[in-house]
Amino acid sequence: MQRILSHQLPTHLGATVTVAGWVHRRRLFKSVAFLILRDATGLTQVVVTDPATRAQVEQLTEESVVAVTGTVALRAKTTGTATAGAVGADQVELIDPVIRPLGTPAVPPPFDLFRPALTATLPTQLDHAPVALRHPTRSAALRISAAAVAGFRAALDARDFVEIHTPKIVGSSTESGANVFALDYFGRPAYLAQSPQFYKQLMVGVFERVYEVGPVFRAEPHDTGRHLAQYTSLDAELGFVTDHTEVMAVLREVLAGMLAVVEDRAGAALATLGVTVPDVPERIPALHFTDALRIAGAPADEPDLAPAHERALCQWALREHGSDFVFVTGYPMAKRPFYTHPDPARPGYSNGFDLLFRGVELVTGGQRLHRHEEYLAALAARGEPVQPYAGYLDAFRHGMPPHGGFAIGLERFVARLTGAANVREVTAFPRDLHRLTP
Amino acid sequence: MQRILSHQLPTHLGATVTVAGWVHRRRLFKSVAFLILRDATGLTQVVVTDPATRAQVEQLTEESVVAVTGTVALRAKTTGTATAGAVGADQVELIDPVIRPLGTPAVPPPFDLFRPALTATLPTQLDHAPVALRHPTRSAALRISAAAVAGFRAALDARDFVEIHTPKIVGSSTESGANVFALDYFGRPAYLAQSPQFYKQLMVGVFERVYEVGPVFRAEPHDTGRHLAQYTSLDAELGFVTDHTEVMAVLREVLAGMLAVVEDRAGAALATLGVTVPDVPERIPALHFTDALRIAGAPADEPDLAPAHERALCQWALREHGSDFVFVTGYPMAKRPFYTHPDPARPGYSNGFDLLFRGVELVTGGQRLHRHEEYLAALAARGEPVQPYAGYLDAFRHGMPPHGGFAIGLERFVARLTGAANVREVTAFPRDLHRLTP
Repeated sequence: MQRILSHQLPTHLGATVTVAGWVHRRRLFKSVAFLILRDATGLTQVVVTDPATRAQVEQLTEESVVAVTGTVALRAKTTGTATAGAVGADQVELIDPVIRPLGTPAVPPPFDLFRPALTATLPTQLDHAPVALRHPTRSAALRISAAAVAGFRAALDARDFVEIHTPKIVGSSTESGANVFALDYFGRPAYLAQSPQFYKQLMVGVFERVYEVGPVFRAEPHDTGRHLAQYTSLDAELGFVTDHTEVMAVLREVLAGMLAVVEDRAGAALATLGVTVPDVPERIPALHFTDALRIAGAPADEPDLAPAHERALCQWALREHGSDFVFVTGYPMAKRPFYTHPDPARPGYSNGFDLLFRGVELVTGGQRLHRHEEYLAALAARGEPVQPYAGYLDAFRHGMPPHGGFAIGLERFVARLTGAANVREVTAFPRDLHRLTP
Repeated sequence: MQRILSHQLPTHLGATVTVAGWVHRRRLFKSVAFLILRDATGLTQVVVTDPATRAQVEQLTEESVVAVTGTVALRAKTTGTATAGAVGADQVELIDPVIRPLGTPAVPPPFDLFRPALTATLPTQLDHAPVALRHPTRSAALRISAAAVAGFRAALDARDFVEIHTPKIVGSSTESGANVFALDYFGRPAYLAQSPQFYKQLMVGVFERVYEVGPVFRAEPHDTGRHLAQYTSLDAELGFVTDHTEVMAVLREVLAGMLAVVEDRAGAALATLGVTVPDVPERIPALHFTDALRIAGAPADEPDLAPAHERALCQWALREHGSDFVFVTGYPMAKRPFYTHPDPARPGYSNGFDLLFRGVELVTGGQRLHRHEEYLAALAARGEPVQPYAGYLDAFRHGMPPHGGFAIGLERFVARLTGAANVREVTAFPRDLHRLTP
């Protein structure tokens, strides 16, 4: 018999159907037993009164996978009004069941998946990720993540960006020599790409507007709640911009698109986590770095924003503008990568920006250099050799338009959105200083 | 002045507009000069008669990036009938232009981008990928690639698959010990994932149906036209299947969806390459491995299909069924990975399949084992230790449904579709035995 999903049960009232899934919970009373079955769409209550079937249920363990054939009936407590076509999945149950195992009985997981919250510590959850992720709070975050990525792509597809796939194994490090994983590439040294930065810039020369969703790698020695050795970077880059403000305008549209698709596709997941999606203001408040220092109460000669400053700026944006987002523009050139375009009016400051979201940096972006000689000068000024960047720089000899772009850290975005304290809570199988499995 | 794109010109007839792009070609005649400008949407013909502007054009080099402000006019050769609202971009031109450089003059690329075909050898193209990809034939393949991936996702989204992102750095090799890149992971040995196989299986335990689009890595020592050290794998996996035939049915829908979106979104790119999208038959012809050997004229005791056999089977499918696709099912267990589910009726053969497309293997898939004890037995039978797979196998102790899936190699798919002889022609920045840059 064709399997149906739990959320389809109400449309089969009175019929004999088969559902299949995991034994979520059993409740054994004197005269009746309940088997709660979990599938991708929710829970099914199976009512067991027959002694032989009850004996079978008593032997079943949580997380065993079974198929159950039975008759769809209204639950006893359901009121008469609910019978008029609008019956919910939690108002029906399966009676007179026949239970068929689809595997061997499961070893129960080291924590209860049927309780509202996972009580195991995060390290224990991560050690047992394949089962921990079955808990609705953990899977909800990943559903939100999937919807956010779909929204990212949809917003950019609608604006004529072309999706690209770029090398993750590179001959020289992308962002700086630090924090890079080295590997043996057919006997030669190579590195894991820390970002698709160079490649997305080069592809602006081909398509003008490009994006990539893919893994990036940082040999991050800090064991914090916001760093991973591998994370998913949502990268975009666009050509023929006047300056970084056009990039910020696209980013604003992309964020709004991401959140709209999260609301649309992951509504149940948001409800599971009790999350409300923030509004993206038509104009996200933007502060120049020098004003940001002042508002954050930092000394005027600070070269960068500390985490405490970022939190203070987010409080300011929420208080003054009712915004969960705030742009900081014009970071000092000294603290930005060599490919950053300076502010023509104040060359010590950059046409680079960060977007802060609920207390942390979520996005880094800006206008890039686009003239070959500017790159040579920028590397020389930093005392960096040209040779490691030769393949990248060469493209700028062959005509590149003014351009800029940004990168959103997916796990940080979902963590901030869901209120997770640690990005590992919203990552299926995190990689960090200590963790290489599962 | 706000820039418009070349394909928007016909709607601005008589108006003064600004376009911007690359100097595609210059044609210098005695009384007139033509500047052909290339942008993301096509070419614009700029007519230059003013002596000062002509002198400027004479100094310009191919691939320099410029903005041109001028008046949109009908071309002289355009017939009267074309003026009635249906003017094409190739029927208008820009007159009385003012040209403004957006960068320094470009160094002309080592091959002409304005000729219909790139005459440079493939190695030369790959050495200069950032400029070679600007040629319409090269960029068209990447547009088709982007559309194919969009179609893959759309088909699976519509069938309630959830997108996942899994680790690319793993503690033990996925598919076999061979062809794996080793790296230094914070002082410990680690490997680049050869596929998301284990993770997508584990995630079936969470979402029942999952997919991933991402890079996979093979330290492939063969220097052929169909192998890359990094390629983009389109992976899907689904639970609660009866056997591999349900996986094949989903794959058929996915392929049809991919080709539909390619036609829809990349029509111009298909036209550039002269490619016709094949039909996907409602039922793709399927042969059991034993029949495939017979039809291919191979000895009945061959354990696998050679490339010549694959070509013969594709010829058979086209001849007998008018199909560009053919499934081969039931490959011998000895030639499939340890997680493969055997055919219950003929245990020496598997519930695994390949899909051949125009002469080559495009997709590998099948039903997987789902019981913990089956995995232990499979590893024992192959003399493989359990320990390296411990984190993966553990999930099977906690209840996994019958499941299966498939993986499509994106570059192979696009190469076969476009008739490219070498996957490197449809890869932006290929990685292979000899190539680590650009």
